[in-house]
Amino acid sequence: MKEDILLSMMTESKEYISGEDISRRLGVSRTAVWKYIEDLRKAGYVIEALPRRGYRLLERPDKLLPTEVRSGLSTKILGQVVHYFPQVGSTNDVARKLAQQGADEGTLVVAEEQTSGRGRRGRNWLSPAGTGIFASLVLRPNLLPAQAPVLTLTAAVAGAEAIRQLTNLPVGIKWPNDLLINGRKVAGILTEISAEIDSIFYVIIGIGINVNTNSFPDELKDIATSLAREGGQAVSRQRLLQLFLLRLEKWYYSLLEGGQDKVLDRWRELSVTLGRQVTIFSPNFTVQGLALDIDQEGALLLQTADHKIVRILSGDVSLR
Amino acid sequence: MKEDILLSMMTESKEYISGEDISRRLGVSRTAVWKYIEDLRKAGYVIEALPRRGYRLLERPDKLLPTEVRSGLSTKILGQVVHYFPQVGSTNDVARKLAQQGADEGTLVVAEEQTSGRGRRGRNWLSPAGTGIFASLVLRPNLLPAQAPVLTLTAAVAGAEAIRQLTNLPVGIKWPNDLLINGRKVAGILTEISAEIDSIFYVIIGIGINVNTNSFPDELKDIATSLAREGGQAVSRQRLLQLFLLRLEKWYYSLLEGGQDKVLDRWRELSVTLGRQVTIFSPNFTVQGLALDIDQEGALLLQTADHKIVRILSGDVSLR
Repeated sequence: MKEDILLSMMTESKEYISGEDISRRLGVSRTAVWKYIEDLRKAGYVIEALPRRGYRLLERPDKLLPTEVRSGLSTKILGQVVHYFPQVGSTNDVARKLAQQGADEGTLVVAEEQTSGRGRRGRNWLSPAGTGIFASLVLRPNLLPAQAPVLTLTAAVAGAEAIRQLTNLPVGIKWPNDLLINGRKVAGILTEISAEIDSIFYVIIGIGINVNTNSFPDELKDIATSLAREGGQAVSRQRLLQLFLLRLEKWYYSLLEGGQDKVLDRWRELSVTLGRQVTIFSPNFTVQGLALDIDQEGALLLQTADHKIVRILSGDVSLR
Repeated sequence: MKEDILLSMMTESKEYISGEDISRRLGVSRTAVWKYIEDLRKAGYVIEALPRRGYRLLERPDKLLPTEVRSGLSTKILGQVVHYFPQVGSTNDVARKLAQQGADEGTLVVAEEQTSGRGRRGRNWLSPAGTGIFASLVLRPNLLPAQAPVLTLTAAVAGAEAIRQLTNLPVGIKWPNDLLINGRKVAGILTEISAEIDSIFYVIIGIGINVNTNSFPDELKDIATSLAREGGQAVSRQRLLQLFLLRLEKWYYSLLEGGQDKVLDRWRELSVTLGRQVTIFSPNFTVQGLALDIDQEGALLLQTADHKIVRILSGDVSLR
């Protein structure tokens, strides 16, 4: 973590910092300082070095490196351990393996690119290099497996709040966990769970956000978008990921302390599903109706044309 | 599977079978026949060999060897692939690893002895060598994670029916999934699940049955028992395991085809919890009341002294 301290020293100071200063404040030798600087340069940081003046940070890499994710991150637990991959099959798969090996709560897996990024039910999630946030968190909540769907809603709330705070874009949540802007999908949550029948071993929360994606393949053009396309300007992936972690940490620990109702209320506020006529497509059935509310377990309550209330646990929502 | 055929040939025939006969019917050489016989002997089968008359099976080992489990097993899927261990940490752990590697539905892991057999919530499950059934099944049901608790109830029903059919002992189910005889625990089910939020990757159903256990340590004497202790005679572990697999297969596929109500009704018939005053102990609360019923998701409905209905998803039931 000395590299984190070094980076924050250089970030705070607009001036040169002498090698001697750094050496003293980190408690390491001048040779070690030089090695840290070289490591940072290799990772993509542009650092100027002038004789007798010292070092100055000119440019940060546009990458979700552990140093970038942690720099200025004000969470206590989520994202404090980061596993970074330039390219990976799926961050959820990596996080699951880490969880099985005992990874702590809050461990974050982040990738620049996913070669087999997944959405729900094995669907593909487009994850081209450097354009989005493709990340997965290991959580170990003291909840019942039946409460796990609420975790998904919690992550959707955190994602929507982070996007609103950073971009002011009118993002909303489509049940259960897609984030939409102007009717197009900008982010999704993929939750996996490993559990005994009445206690959870671990949960993996995967999030994919289209941040600076410029173009989408034809089949996605009408249904997907990115923050950059909607807002007309590039968005900092680093800052967005940090905000997401911060909002999620707040809501997640509130949930564990019995704050489920608050999470559900916030979800309702951010929802674009409730109060609308929707069609639910599931492998086993299709049903139409008015989306009335969600219940304590995150299920969608639908009022059909014959005024029956149907409780939906799973399915894809079409908003017309 | 040629060993299975050889065994069933010897089992059906009370007479000697010539090596030539076996060789012809299995379609293998006489040398191969001799090797099969030697393998069976090593596994514990006592086989007499007489010159010019042939082979005769005198004694089967009292072990849950794959050949023993499959011999006469009339299921289509459950237990048709068997992984056998003289000793193992926990059959659930082995089954989980197999499932992660892609093991098919119905794959059975069985052990003579577990060195770290587990019950719910990490509790110990006494598993001394050769005395019980310690087994785990890999299932891949097309169900929602929220329906998984019903799988546990299904396994409890299958276990109770198998025990009743073989021993006539008055076994009953204590919610959710303990099997009791005369108030003492004789078997338990441990279900594990790996899932996305709305689809199941795999389920592991572990079952532990105290079959021929003669003595229990002091701390278990008043709360645990075995079929042999209750019935006064040894019980065939092989036959019991086969009956369990057969009953489970029937109920499980009935459940997948929409027969949930039938499973729940059968559970109600076999229950020793419903209609009684009970106390529920959970890590988070203790509640007393009349056990009224279970609902569609397997939760216990409790009527408290002030006539409120409490829905219990998790906890230990004390019947009193």
